[in-house]
Amino acid sequence: MRTRAAVALAPGQPLEVMDVNLEGPRKGEVLVEIKATGICHTDEFTRSGDDPEGIFPAILGHEGAGVVVEVGEGVTSLEVGDHVIPLYTCECRECEYCLNPKTNLCQAIRSTQGQGLLPDGTTRFSMLDGTPIHHYMGCSTFANHTVVPEIALAKVRKDAPFDKICYIGCGVTTGIGAVINTAKVEIGSRAIVFGLGGIGLNVIQGLRMAGASQIVGVDLNDDKEEMARYFGLTDFVNPSRVEGDLVAHLVELTGGGADYTFDATGNVNVMRTALEAAHKGWGESIIIGVAPAGAEISTRPFQLVTGRVWRGTAFGGARGRTDVPKIVDWYMDGKIEIDPMITHTLKLEDINEGFDLMHRGESIRAVVVY
Amino acid sequence: MRTRAAVALAPGQPLEVMDVNLEGPRKGEVLVEIKATGICHTDEFTRSGDDPEGIFPAILGHEGAGVVVEVGEGVTSLEVGDHVIPLYTCECRECEYCLNPKTNLCQAIRSTQGQGLLPDGTTRFSMLDGTPIHHYMGCSTFANHTVVPEIALAKVRKDAPFDKICYIGCGVTTGIGAVINTAKVEIGSRAIVFGLGGIGLNVIQGLRMAGASQIVGVDLNDDKEEMARYFGLTDFVNPSRVEGDLVAHLVELTGGGADYTFDATGNVNVMRTALEAAHKGWGESIIIGVAPAGAEISTRPFQLVTGRVWRGTAFGGARGRTDVPKIVDWYMDGKIEIDPMITHTLKLEDINEGFDLMHRGESIRAVVVY
Repeated sequence: MRTRAAVALAPGQPLEVMDVNLEGPRKGEVLVEIKATGICHTDEFTRSGDDPEGIFPAILGHEGAGVVVEVGEGVTSLEVGDHVIPLYTCECRECEYCLNPKTNLCQAIRSTQGQGLLPDGTTRFSMLDGTPIHHYMGCSTFANHTVVPEIALAKVRKDAPFDKICYIGCGVTTGIGAVINTAKVEIGSRAIVFGLGGIGLNVIQGLRMAGASQIVGVDLNDDKEEMARYFGLTDFVNPSRVEGDLVAHLVELTGGGADYTFDATGNVNVMRTALEAAHKGWGESIIIGVAPAGAEISTRPFQLVTGRVWRGTAFGGARGRTDVPKIVDWYMDGKIEIDPMITHTLKLEDINEGFDLMHRGESIRAVVVY
Repeated sequence: MRTRAAVALAPGQPLEVMDVNLEGPRKGEVLVEIKATGICHTDEFTRSGDDPEGIFPAILGHEGAGVVVEVGEGVTSLEVGDHVIPLYTCECRECEYCLNPKTNLCQAIRSTQGQGLLPDGTTRFSMLDGTPIHHYMGCSTFANHTVVPEIALAKVRKDAPFDKICYIGCGVTTGIGAVINTAKVEIGSRAIVFGLGGIGLNVIQGLRMAGASQIVGVDLNDDKEEMARYFGLTDFVNPSRVEGDLVAHLVELTGGGADYTFDATGNVNVMRTALEAAHKGWGESIIIGVAPAGAEISTRPFQLVTGRVWRGTAFGGARGRTDVPKIVDWYMDGKIEIDPMITHTLKLEDINEGFDLMHRGESIRAVVVY
């Protein structure tokens, strides 16, 4: 079949919207009509050419929601008409990782996914001239139709709006999951969130759900404060207006350091500040942001020997097929909010404008609706 | 009173054994006759002048065992004749840290201890000419008699030999505690221990107690293998004989990386190797060793984002008054061994020989018996 897609032809270039060929689903695969997709910094990281593992041409996008159109041989958990969210972190429920309660990093299709291919080592997308187009993060939601392995699709309720729940495919789950799955924040905790963009806001609403008693937000942009307060922020700190040492300021503000700190910036210097602003004895710092290629974190080991813990999280520690449907329920039940974070809605033809909005810091999340 | 002590008069000089003055115990303090004391690398770190927080003159030593001779006003948990192990990490059972189950870093007397003083801000030791001599880590076990706060003394059974259980005052508890309190190693875990000295051997016997299924030891000195195997080592790796990347070798040896890795070297490069040899998804790396002043650890944040956890431990995460008596019981019940690690017994007059043995790598632990 043919479908409409925004194709990343080469690193650093704008996406090109065009018709592409899409083969039907093979064994264990599912054809999904994407109804909406968010535009995430990770897409931009690859589009820009900064991602050393980026492969081109490719159809980017990993934060989508849609409807099952066709199922391949052997698919048992999904049927035509089901509403789904594609998962860049799949959940096979059979591998060593899925069977270990400490991790969500299913490895079932890891190697082919990293190569921009489906599990059988091929691609379903191609240019009209036959040139293969790579998949991206196993999702490729910047196409109106895409083929995804069954184990990489979360089945969600049918009354949830696609243009909102697509955000659960990455940002919402990453932020909230970092709090509840990775940090396991307890009621009454004090926390600091570095970076009040789309991920940071979701960390904040995760902290509010978890019953944190103090939620400090750190951002260089004062404009971020208002929305963050709406989601539960209790204290705003702009480092550019802190006299003296930022760590010392944050430690004092949190009565000795935060129980949990979260980096949602991807800046390795901020990651260090986040660790060192965690409470001596028990403070845990969680890295969410993706750092530039080759960048390294560092600190004095004394920081760890005196009880701080340094962790990271991917997809918020969520097991997608199990946890994503629950988060959709939370949204529909009003336990979490998404709507205020979807600041822009675009057509696929205008997708590059979504990247521009991101660069100008004007959007929290721009969503493409097909 | 007068007592005999080995005094560190100035950084980098041998200790000088001499008579010193010792005032009696004040409120909340206890006079202890030290019967035996180990000589630890931390004592040498300070003696040598490498410790930027070292204060002189001081009576070093923090790994002792002895008998209560006199109790000060208000002391209720100890009486004359009790056998005790001094604790450089005290346990007041009242501070914010003691009341938080996530840490053992009691802060009750932290600031004065760091200044080489007892909690009232003074020292009990002085030269015969009246010059004050500082305490060290709140213990000063290189003196035949010392004064220690009640909250920094673990009461232990009277049938345990001083010249063995003194080692529980630091090395044994640090190594075993890192496994059971900090890492909380589960039965069947795979582990790697970097550095097979006194701490490393205790990590190994901790791992054996915890039911680890694979215990890999890494050391540049082949002579360490035999004793390590005696304590439970299953695989020995000498990095100087590994072709190619050490991390890759260890990951392969442990079937994908270790569930737990322990640095007992104090070398920040080894700490990085230890983290990166931990299993993707869930491996935890615990820093035990004390790094040189100013040294920093570093890694790519990707290591944490993909599920590795970086921790540290001090005094093995043990709450001394509660946990040290249990470890003494384990020794007396034959659950752990100490005797083979006490390789040398010296008189106080020969204490500098103990440091020489350590430097030459000939001792695991040299113990001074009074």
